[in-house]
Amino acid sequence: MGKEITARNEDYSQWYNDLVLKSGLADYSAVRGCMIIKPYGFTLWENMRDALDKMFKDTGHVNAYFPLFVPKSLFEAEEQNAEGFAKECAVVTHYRLKSDPERKGKLIVDEEAKLEEELVVRPTSEAIIWSTYKNWIQSYRDLPILINQWANVVRWEMRTRLFLRTAEFLWQEGHTAHATKEEALFEARQMLDIYADFVENFMAVPVIKGTKTANERFAGAEDTYCIEALMQDGKALQAGTSHFLGQNFAKAFDVKFSDKNNKLDYVWATSWGVSTRLIGALVMAHSDDDGLILPPKLAPLQVVIVPIYKNNEQKNAITQKAKEIIAALKQMNIRVKYDDNDNMRPGWKFAEYEMKGVPIRITIGPKDLENNAVEVARRDLKEKRSISLNSIANDVAALLDDIQNSIFNKAKKLIDEHITEVNTWEEFLDVLESKTGFLSAHWDGTGETEEKIKELTKATIRCIPFDAKQEDGFCVLTGRPSKQRVLFAKAY
Amino acid sequence: MGKEITARNEDYSQWYNDLVLKSGLADYSAVRGCMIIKPYGFTLWENMRDALDKMFKDTGHVNAYFPLFVPKSLFEAEEQNAEGFAKECAVVTHYRLKSDPERKGKLIVDEEAKLEEELVVRPTSEAIIWSTYKNWIQSYRDLPILINQWANVVRWEMRTRLFLRTAEFLWQEGHTAHATKEEALFEARQMLDIYADFVENFMAVPVIKGTKTANERFAGAEDTYCIEALMQDGKALQAGTSHFLGQNFAKAFDVKFSDKNNKLDYVWATSWGVSTRLIGALVMAHSDDDGLILPPKLAPLQVVIVPIYKNNEQKNAITQKAKEIIAALKQMNIRVKYDDNDNMRPGWKFAEYEMKGVPIRITIGPKDLENNAVEVARRDLKEKRSISLNSIANDVAALLDDIQNSIFNKAKKLIDEHITEVNTWEEFLDVLESKTGFLSAHWDGTGETEEKIKELTKATIRCIPFDAKQEDGFCVLTGRPSKQRVLFAKAY
Repeated sequence: MGKEITARNEDYSQWYNDLVLKSGLADYSAVRGCMIIKPYGFTLWENMRDALDKMFKDTGHVNAYFPLFVPKSLFEAEEQNAEGFAKECAVVTHYRLKSDPERKGKLIVDEEAKLEEELVVRPTSEAIIWSTYKNWIQSYRDLPILINQWANVVRWEMRTRLFLRTAEFLWQEGHTAHATKEEALFEARQMLDIYADFVENFMAVPVIKGTKTANERFAGAEDTYCIEALMQDGKALQAGTSHFLGQNFAKAFDVKFSDKNNKLDYVWATSWGVSTRLIGALVMAHSDDDGLILPPKLAPLQVVIVPIYKNNEQKNAITQKAKEIIAALKQMNIRVKYDDNDNMRPGWKFAEYEMKGVPIRITIGPKDLENNAVEVARRDLKEKRSISLNSIANDVAALLDDIQNSIFNKAKKLIDEHITEVNTWEEFLDVLESKTGFLSAHWDGTGETEEKIKELTKATIRCIPFDAKQEDGFCVLTGRPSKQRVLFAKAY
Repeated sequence: MGKEITARNEDYSQWYNDLVLKSGLADYSAVRGCMIIKPYGFTLWENMRDALDKMFKDTGHVNAYFPLFVPKSLFEAEEQNAEGFAKECAVVTHYRLKSDPERKGKLIVDEEAKLEEELVVRPTSEAIIWSTYKNWIQSYRDLPILINQWANVVRWEMRTRLFLRTAEFLWQEGHTAHATKEEALFEARQMLDIYADFVENFMAVPVIKGTKTANERFAGAEDTYCIEALMQDGKALQAGTSHFLGQNFAKAFDVKFSDKNNKLDYVWATSWGVSTRLIGALVMAHSDDDGLILPPKLAPLQVVIVPIYKNNEQKNAITQKAKEIIAALKQMNIRVKYDDNDNMRPGWKFAEYEMKGVPIRITIGPKDLENNAVEVARRDLKEKRSISLNSIANDVAALLDDIQNSIFNKAKKLIDEHITEVNTWEEFLDVLESKTGFLSAHWDGTGETEEKIKELTKATIRCIPFDAKQEDGFCVLTGRPSKQRVLFAKAY
């Protein structure tokens, strides 16, 4: 009965793929590296998007839309950014197809319709946006610009995974312009805090905030802030980044403004983004071998009601009662579905909604009606209890809150227990392989050592935590002096 | 003071461009034929999208997301569709850039990263979606599939205009799959009715519903239904289309289902879409020489409050009162802004919000406070009146309704007066040039005659109206017998 998925301890990676496919979140497509976000997955994304969008707007941001294509000459203007993304750019070179004279009904590229200048499908939009800001900004009165864009972007990845790494993905990208460095720095930190707030309080995934090392920085940024989460297999996942871009893009596109004293200066910039990758993080952080476990705040469906009956008379009586419950739950804005499909047996439905991670299942049978109660099962702990119909809506709402907190706390415990201070290279190797998770270690601050550790172990510096305390120590690899610990991990 | 735009009777086309740019709806971009939707325009689009999305969901549709790229072999599978769009396809041929060895800091396409199969940037998604539906549909139990997608699409147009015709545009595309022809026909009509409902009741633009002739049909459809609107210059604009696709795509992609009797049959399909083009229609339908006139239901800002003061004491007293008004309006979900920017004079603000088409402007001066009243000006008729503060929220809400109805009625009068029955070729030519609008004329039903009339006059058959009565007549060009009138017009 139900759909089988690979167990986590058997093959974590296969478990993830099975889960994403069988829960109906996504599917593979006919296009290399591109996925299809199915309705169940897309509703989850809509809930995430709407919550984030409100947070952006509450902090004064507005949405806009810029072109999908970036002319090559604009793309290459900010050299670091261009160099960082050049290797994964899909490039449009022609604007017409024509009939193949040799194969009826087939098309070929029309070589006469070759573009004079190639167009890059945006891997990120700094270039196209800053070439536009040049026309919008003359004076300090035009600042700040606080624009966000919800869009698709394309990065030609060689090894792709559903949600976690796809050639095309959906995201939001904020692009702000400021009169001062301080304001831009404040903005970059503010947006990271918003991401952390969202990921912890909506996705129920605890994160560590920090700064990326120069090696891991966004191409074209002066500083990249990030939030890092921990998956159940002990690997880290970067959940969002916010970049202080300094004046790099303003200089590349010659964007200056006159301040209150009529002095000309380059504009300061930030950019920040989260993507459908977050869905992958959400899935991997909470789910189990029976399927998804979704946080109630984002779950497409929060409650499913399954009737148990032997005949139509019983079914009608249960349906009557279910309607009352649904009305009471909807009154409290709870997303609820009544599944009275006769074609499927209750056991099949139980397994199906477990797979889909619906936080609460309510079962109603004839005996429940007699007792003026229903059986309520929570997906995360698989506990069942009987709840009186008198207080059903309040009790369900409270249980949803409890589930939200409970899965956060469980994930919090995992990450807290998986930040291990290591002081020697032997410890580093041992903990990395046996315990996994984040290794808090001294590092000599050089890109060479960072690169060497990556080569040797596949572990990278996930971040220099904001709250890292200053302490003297010695680099775990080279023994050179260090002033603070950084977090290493293997990562998605 | 304020921004000047070209008058409609001087140059309608220039008026439109000026208006879109100066009201802050959109801007040109560095990419040929692509536009930037600025925050004000994008908020308008968000309001339109949200209203439509709710209507789709209320009729059982769900959103999903399919890849931006269509492999050429899939794209060409449905031959009519492929042939119809081949001439305007942006084509991705390479997936990597590299440093130009001859020009430091510049990039060139890496010829070693040539795709084995070219990817078409979707001009529409039937091909990629139906190649997927093949995997999702086996039995009648898998039907119907009622999926919608909000996405960007690219059609390489040679002559572009802001919103009305751009190389990239935003739209929604519904793609449904059904077990029977009747169900698909019902769906195609239902979605056209939803479009008409939205365009008339939210955009306040009256439309005529009808069927396209074979010449004007969507490439790959059995029938295309449409809604046609009339712009102030007497030209028609197609505002939305809904296609009955028959079994064409099911046959092209071999999508069969087994019915209740285990009989295999091809699946029936519809698709339907509206785009950011609607913003162009909205702008052209209502606006005047002073700027936009926006329907309150969609206006990003419904009310602006401008204080008139000579000193800080007055300003403080007015601000105090304005806060009360704002609270009362927000209570009724009215979108309101208080503009107390000291850098701009009231006259400048009046002109600016007229340009932006904010439906209601409230002015508060010291005398108004004494009288416990404010001055309320409506954008559409430019009428002002004094309203007591005692009933301000209710009065403003009622006025917003009145404006919504009033601009619809004005547009309705225009279209009703511009559907002219013509019975001879001389009449046809005369009315087309002097009166403009829709010509209701007999037509012999042939594509040749339709094409000939287009060549001679630039007028096309906009639709065969659903409500056209059966009557005997003679084709306005050829004199051949005809059973009903169709609507001709010059169109955007």
